[in-house]
This record gives sequence, C-alpha cells and structure tokens, in this order.
Amino acid sequence: MSVYTTVTPEALEPWLARYDIGRLVALKGIAAGVTNTNYFVTTTQGRYVLTLFEALQLDELPFYLNLTHHLSRHGVAVAGPVADRTDQFASMLAGKPACLVHCLPGTDVSAPTPAQCAQVGAMLASMHIAGDTFPMSMPNPRGPHWWSVTAAAVYPFMAPADAALLRDELHLQNSHRYAYLPRGIIHADLFRDNVLFDGEQISGFIDFYYACNDLLLYDLAIAVNDWAMLADGDIDNERARAFIDAYRAVRPLQQAEIEAWPLMLRAAAIRFWVSRLYDLHLPAAGELTYAKDPAAFQHVLERHRQRTDFWL
Amino acid sequence: MSVYTTVTPEALEPWLARYDIGRLVALKGIAAGVTNTNYFVTTTQGRYVLTLFEALQLDELPFYLNLTHHLSRHGVAVAGPVADRTDQFASMLAGKPACLVHCLPGTDVSAPTPAQCAQVGAMLASMHIAGDTFPMSMPNPRGPHWWSVTAAAVYPFMAPADAALLRDELHLQNSHRYAYLPRGIIHADLFRDNVLFDGEQISGFIDFYYACNDLLLYDLAIAVNDWAMLADGDIDNERARAFIDAYRAVRPLQQAEIEAWPLMLRAAAIRFWVSRLYDLHLPAAGELTYAKDPAAFQHVLERHRQRTDFWL
Repeated sequence: MSVYTTVTPEALEPWLARYDIGRLVALKGIAAGVTNTNYFVTTTQGRYVLTLFEALQLDELPFYLNLTHHLSRHGVAVAGPVADRTDQFASMLAGKPACLVHCLPGTDVSAPTPAQCAQVGAMLASMHIAGDTFPMSMPNPRGPHWWSVTAAAVYPFMAPADAALLRDELHLQNSHRYAYLPRGIIHADLFRDNVLFDGEQISGFIDFYYACNDLLLYDLAIAVNDWAMLADGDIDNERARAFIDAYRAVRPLQQAEIEAWPLMLRAAAIRFWVSRLYDLHLPAAGELTYAKDPAAFQHVLERHRQRTDFWL
Repeated sequence: MSVYTTVTPEALEPWLARYDIGRLVALKGIAAGVTNTNYFVTTTQGRYVLTLFEALQLDELPFYLNLTHHLSRHGVAVAGPVADRTDQFASMLAGKPACLVHCLPGTDVSAPTPAQCAQVGAMLASMHIAGDTFPMSMPNPRGPHWWSVTAAAVYPFMAPADAALLRDELHLQNSHRYAYLPRGIIHADLFRDNVLFDGEQISGFIDFYYACNDLLLYDLAIAVNDWAMLADGDIDNERARAFIDAYRAVRPLQQAEIEAWPLMLRAAAIRFWVSRLYDLHLPAAGELTYAKDPAAFQHVLERHRQRTDFWL
C-alpha cells in the first residue's frame, strides 16, 4: 500500500481551491507505486491523480512536471500536470510537495502482446524526438558511476560467482565509451507498470520521476528488457522485435547505435540488477516498499551474454 | 457537411511529420461544424481532430490556440492543441491555416438533463476563473456595435412588428452600460453542440473560435438561453436553475451581476437572433452552411420580456 502520507478530504479541500477544477467529490488512496503517495481525486469536473512526494523536494519538481507538460503539449500520451491559479504545478500539502495530474484511462498490462509492445515502442520513439525541444536537463543519478558504487556495497552479500559476473560486466561497461551516441530526455523506467492501456489502445506513459538526460538507446534497452521479458528471465523474440521495429519506424537507429545495442541491453540489465540487490540487502530504515527479485535481471544479463540475435 | 477543403492522406502525411504523434492510420471527414473543415486523424499514437480554418488567418490563431492550451493546462476540460516540433500550434496545410487538437471522448447531447446542465455551468465558471491568468486578449467582434450595424441590414427583410421589437430591444440595451460588471475570457458560443459528454460525465468544451474578452455574465446568459431552451423557445426552469446554481457555487455572482441578469439574458438572445437573421437574409456568396432559424431566439427574447422569475 503506497499511502505513506494521509490526506483527508478536509485537508484537501482548501488546497484544491488553488485550482480551477471544481469541487471535491471523492478521494481514494492508490495501492500501486512504491516511492510516493498517490490518491485518485474526483471533482465535479473530472478525475485526477494527486501525488505527494515522499523523497523529492519542491524545488526538484519543475524538471519532471515541466517535462510531462512539454510532452503532453507535443502530443505524446502522458499524464500531464495541472497548473494552479498562480501557474505552478506543485505546492506543499500535508507537509509534502504535491501535484495533480490528469487521470489517464485504462490499466497496465502484465502480459503484453506484440501489438502492445509495438505501440509502446513507437510512443517511446516519439517521446525521444519530442524531448529534443525540452529546454531543461537532469543528469542521470543512476548512471554507471552509481552502478559501481552501489555494486561495491552489495558484493559482500552476493554468492562469489554472481559477484564475479557483476564485476566482469561492470569492467566491460566501464571500458566502453558511448559518448558518440544520441542523447536526450529518457524515461529511464519504462516498465510495464508505467504504461496504461485502454483496451488495445495505449493510453499513456506515467511516472517520469526517474526521467533524465542520457543515451536514447539505453532507454530503449531498459524498455525492451522488461516488455519482452518472460517469466524465466529470457526474452520473447516476437515481442522484442515488435517493440524495436516500431521504435525504429519512428526514430531510425544510427549505425553506431546498432553496433552498441548488444552491450546496451546488458547495461540496462545491470542497472536494475544492481538497484534491486541494493534494495534487497540494504533497505533504508523504515522503508515500506517490498524488494523486487534481483535474480530476474541477472538472468536477463546472462541470456544477453549468450545471445547472437539481438532483433536488429 | 463541413469539409470545404479536401485533404488526402498523401497530402497529410508530410505535414504530420512536423509532429511527434506517430504515423497516420486513418483520416475521416467530420460532418458537424459550420465554419471550418474538420477531420478525425487517427495515428499510431492516438486520435486527434484536424481543423483547417476557412476564414481565420494564420496570424489570428495564436489567441484561440494559446487560450485552449492555457485552459487545458489549468484543468478545464477542453480539446487542447498539439504543438509541432518547432513548438507552433498551427501552420499551413492545403493552402489553409491548420491545427491538430486532442480528440475528446463522447458526443454532444441534444436534450440535456438538469444534472448535465449543472456540470456545464460549473465548468463554465471554472473556465471564467482560469481565464483570469491568460495573458492575451481579443475584443468581441460580435458585440453591441455589431448587433446595431447588422440589425440595420436586416430590418428591410423583417415583418414590421418584429423589426419594431428588435429596434426597441437594441435601444434598451444601448441605454445600459455594463462597464462595472466582471469581464474576462468568454467562450461566447457555448451551445449544446460545443460541449461533449462521455456518458453522464462532461468530457469537454470545444470550438473556441468565438472566444474573446467580454462580460462573464453575458457568457452565462448565452449558455443558459441554449442549454435550458425548450423546442418552443421557452426556458425549462429546472435546467436553467441547475445550470445557474452550479455556476454560482464555483463563481458567486456579484450584486451588480444579479441586478443586470434579466437584461443580460435578453442581450444574449439578441446576439443570436441578429446573426441568424443576417445569415438567413444575407448569406455570403457561395456559402455552404445551412441557416439556423432566427425565430427561436426571437421567442426566447419575447419570453424573457414577460418573465418575472429569472432563477436567481
């Protein structure tokens, strides 16, 4: 349950008066999500998601909220934020930075079809292109340096063979420079639970709070690793190909990206293997989130090491 | 049928490449609307309405498109425009200024319930408040001066008693000054066909191409005259009261507005009686639109003259 901060209708109503979205009809906590507190807010005018940020500070929010506003303005289906009467997207509520975003219809899909993968791939490419004109930037706080520092903290908890694999892979990644690959705004966490479908039609991307500036190809690899992943950690070829082909039809890959692709898939697997190892072995004091299994991404990585077909 | 300018998929595709909304899947003309050419555009990413402006010039569009963008950003349910990669909302297509807006779900309602009237009234009040922070402005091209000039052109076509009524009403309006009433952004044409409902839930306001700066109370009167109008031109008390009460719950009326209300309802009726008389008797050469019956608003006006209860 992801309601860390309780908001009552009595506390919400005066805050809602900052906005032009009508009067409160219903308020309901949302169980999904592991970092922030979320509520469905229904007013006389529509349905919104209220987010209270449990870690991000008020002055860190403009990047994320202006970004989703920018993408929405350019026709990328995302849950855009609502501005209040002072034209701000966020302000304090119940002691936390808080914002309202439009509520997208639909739900996430746990077993995506190739057709759904293709829709996500095409939209991700549109997002990468639309990000070109976004004027703000944000370094990736979970890039290669973070992987190495975090890996050092979890080696003591790992089986020796697993630790050796991780060391070996980090060494390989650190010996490659991707500076010549196209960079831009990436979602950085476009897993199945961050895309909503309304029936067969994609309804939008959500949860941009890991978004940052990094390699576009890395974002594609993160998404393909999740969207095409089977229960055993292997990759479904049909879903992977549908995702990648649809992406390339909107944003063709450069030759340098095609060459970097096999290693990029491994980099994307390392990112989540490491963070899940950390969350499992070194949870923050009092953390209420459940740790996800790191082994899934270890399997993805091992399979990528053996692979000869990368769906290009 | 309101497709005055034909757009083929072949002509549309290169223009769509200006945007980040995916590739064209389907293109379909829209019969509704009397001024501009409209198409439904379905892409791999979503559904949009393409409008080609038959009268407005490209440099006249920023007011309307920035306005709907502003309202949408503030949570007022409107069909917001989509920006292209140069961050413009409009550009030329098939020789006409053209734009894409998000497609709202639902359809217009021809026989609104009191509950639907209340939703529209509340949203209109939100729109009036959200318009407060919109930085652009537009004088009303169809204000009292336009009524008088246009009435002079149609008197020769009218039955003497009707013409006398119109002269009398214009004289009365011209003898009143409303300069002290709250002004702001008004829709100025919020008839039933310009509001979409998705089931029982309001989905949004459309067609802001008469929007301008004028008296907020005048906008309320225009909307009430249409939303509460019965087939015989009388006003349904229950619908009128639901509309007005919901409006006032969001934006309370000032005492001066309450006093001006009976005459404002008549002003709003005059506006559409006059424009319909003009369209009927003096249609523009080659105009393809069908003229709506002016008599409906003459009846509304006559009923307002006899009324003692104005639902306040």
